[in-house]
Amino acid sequence: METNYRSLFEAARKAGAALGNLPAERLSDAVRSAADMLRSHMPEILAANAEDLAAMDPASPLCDRLRLTPERLEAIAADMEAVAALPSPQGETLDAWTHPNGMTIRKVRVPFGVVGMICEARPNVTADIFSLCMKTGNACVLKGGSDARRSNEAIARALHEALRRAEIDRAAFTLLPSDHAAVGELLNAVGYVDVVIPRGGAGLIRFVREHARVPVIETGAGIVHTYFDAAGDVEKGRRVICNAKTRRVSVCNALDCLVIHRDRLGDLPALCAPLAEHHVTLYADREALAALTDHYPAELLRPATDDDYGTEFLDYKMAIRSVSSLDEALAHIARYSSRHSEAIITEDPLAAERFTRRVDAACVYVNVSTAFTDGGQFGFGAEVGISTQKLHARGPMGLPELTTYKYIVTGDGQIRTS
Amino acid sequence: METNYRSLFEAARKAGAALGNLPAERLSDAVRSAADMLRSHMPEILAANAEDLAAMDPASPLCDRLRLTPERLEAIAADMEAVAALPSPQGETLDAWTHPNGMTIRKVRVPFGVVGMICEARPNVTADIFSLCMKTGNACVLKGGSDARRSNEAIARALHEALRRAEIDRAAFTLLPSDHAAVGELLNAVGYVDVVIPRGGAGLIRFVREHARVPVIETGAGIVHTYFDAAGDVEKGRRVICNAKTRRVSVCNALDCLVIHRDRLGDLPALCAPLAEHHVTLYADREALAALTDHYPAELLRPATDDDYGTEFLDYKMAIRSVSSLDEALAHIARYSSRHSEAIITEDPLAAERFTRRVDAACVYVNVSTAFTDGGQFGFGAEVGISTQKLHARGPMGLPELTTYKYIVTGDGQIRTS
Repeated sequence: METNYRSLFEAARKAGAALGNLPAERLSDAVRSAADMLRSHMPEILAANAEDLAAMDPASPLCDRLRLTPERLEAIAADMEAVAALPSPQGETLDAWTHPNGMTIRKVRVPFGVVGMICEARPNVTADIFSLCMKTGNACVLKGGSDARRSNEAIARALHEALRRAEIDRAAFTLLPSDHAAVGELLNAVGYVDVVIPRGGAGLIRFVREHARVPVIETGAGIVHTYFDAAGDVEKGRRVICNAKTRRVSVCNALDCLVIHRDRLGDLPALCAPLAEHHVTLYADREALAALTDHYPAELLRPATDDDYGTEFLDYKMAIRSVSSLDEALAHIARYSSRHSEAIITEDPLAAERFTRRVDAACVYVNVSTAFTDGGQFGFGAEVGISTQKLHARGPMGLPELTTYKYIVTGDGQIRTS
Repeated sequence: METNYRSLFEAARKAGAALGNLPAERLSDAVRSAADMLRSHMPEILAANAEDLAAMDPASPLCDRLRLTPERLEAIAADMEAVAALPSPQGETLDAWTHPNGMTIRKVRVPFGVVGMICEARPNVTADIFSLCMKTGNACVLKGGSDARRSNEAIARALHEALRRAEIDRAAFTLLPSDHAAVGELLNAVGYVDVVIPRGGAGLIRFVREHARVPVIETGAGIVHTYFDAAGDVEKGRRVICNAKTRRVSVCNALDCLVIHRDRLGDLPALCAPLAEHHVTLYADREALAALTDHYPAELLRPATDDDYGTEFLDYKMAIRSVSSLDEALAHIARYSSRHSEAIITEDPLAAERFTRRVDAACVYVNVSTAFTDGGQFGFGAEVGISTQKLHARGPMGLPELTTYKYIVTGDGQIRTS
């Protein structure tokens, strides 16, 4: 059966307009009710998930991301309840003033209207996105991964049951068909979809950038550096580098390249020692390699090629580059960074100041692990994604980043005479 | 000679990075110096402008927009000095807090880096854009209109002389070749250009939307409505409608369609009377036409076709639509609006409240002319454009809208354990 995308998008727009006028408490209640429905639909969701898993190569690393368990579903429901309990950004007056002619101008926060999301395999994201959009008064149009089709459909049924009970238009949450054509339709829904947020790998982001006619917030890809300065503290460096590299290698804030001042190459073995315990393979330039030889397991040591810089490894791998100055470190980072998260380890306040001013990235750290680039860690209570662009939102996005504003101007017949 | 765009964009990025680290006062001084240079290069600029004008059909309405005079150049220079005198948004701390682990998180305003602009014929915009970008610490890459090529080049020479005197990299302001290929290069400069802002007609905006791979802020096109409610005051309505339609018909905030409650069709002749003096042609639906016949000049009265709704006239023309309720007015506006500026004329506070909540537009007015949608009128001191999208900026954009932010996180070795 042919999907009528235009009527889907029209319905979403209408539902979004209605949501934006509901009291914040009704939106939060709908999110709580959806958490309940997720729990009561658990057998059905797990059965659908088992079918998705059965259709997949059991050796694929995607299986673990796709798999739902009663514990994981309960955690998802608890996360939804946490979002419901957050303060609502709705209706906030951001600014207000009076024109010399007596009319008042108010800048008021409002929902986007319709938020489009494109996700890859993980079905937990479906419920997550529902709660973030519902809480902020946005209708949501979701294109999920085809591997998770049955799981997503089962979750969507639970969410729609919650909407029915809350007497909210079911078009407030639309799960698009899982085929690729839906992506193109979503990216071209000018006038219906106010923003599309892709959540996935570099390939997805590139595709969206090439094909979108609607506004996009790019998220995700992180090519992350930590610079160990001439004045770096070895103990802090050891802790921070190991944590940033090995806490979870598959996430975008994981460290990809250690840049080290040549004066401190003698400390490189100590800085890298904890990485050996995690079997991290190091791709080092000539000088770093010389400093590490005989101090780091030979089977985990490789000469770096230029391709190793500017690579998001998402694995137990890290590049090392030695430099003669802070400025050389800044130049290396400017060249290879994806402007996500960058760190310096230094006890020199001037070096820290210069680094934080000069580095062009969403999050710049001094003596702190880049693993903190995360909405939860930033205290936002929820995370929509991590923006790597500069427009609208940068770095971790919380609920307010799913809103825009409008100006409301009130007077008694003012006209413009100049 | 082939233009090497990549090296142009690389140089702009480098210049932008340097600008972002200059003290605000040096940026303001450079803008003031540029105003002086514009004055001292006046003969050269006027000569170049005369050549541009000579190449153009003298009957074209574009001639007036293209023409520079000593008075116009002086006004441009004075505007630049006004921008220089505005408070700088640079370096502002937008938010700051401490994580439970003791590290501090600061959200700091920073320039975009490189702003791309695409403009049509008006050469005054060139100097305007220079001052807005320089003031906010952004490098600017401008694609001007080909009709204004010689004027723009002469203005750019004056601006570059100011940069030379201020010891600022000339790549901080780059005038691209005026051929169409430059637009494509600019729209694809991923990694070099942080945002592109097109200033021009609907055709330009559509082209940019289709072809951009870099983030865009859409500006301009306004299909503007004013709804005269059942409880509207005739005197306020007369003033506001006439001002919104006729103050300047060529601008995006000009009124395109009057929506009127059927109960008030008897007042339509009085509401429209001032428009007749300005020879405004009215495209009215059947009932409005009946109400106006014999009360409005017959030669200025036409039956409306569906195409007349949703048209940005940019001319002495206005559509009229009669409705039976506020909700029918809201539905009409939702269908045809470009979400730029919309107004209601009413003495009923509930109707005003419902209208301002329900209408999805950058600026929503109660008993005020839509002509106020303007950065200067909003008190911003300058205007980058009027955004018709919801991402990043909505409505009139001032200096802060040319900035983004970054997070600076400072600690003493914090790692993430959860």
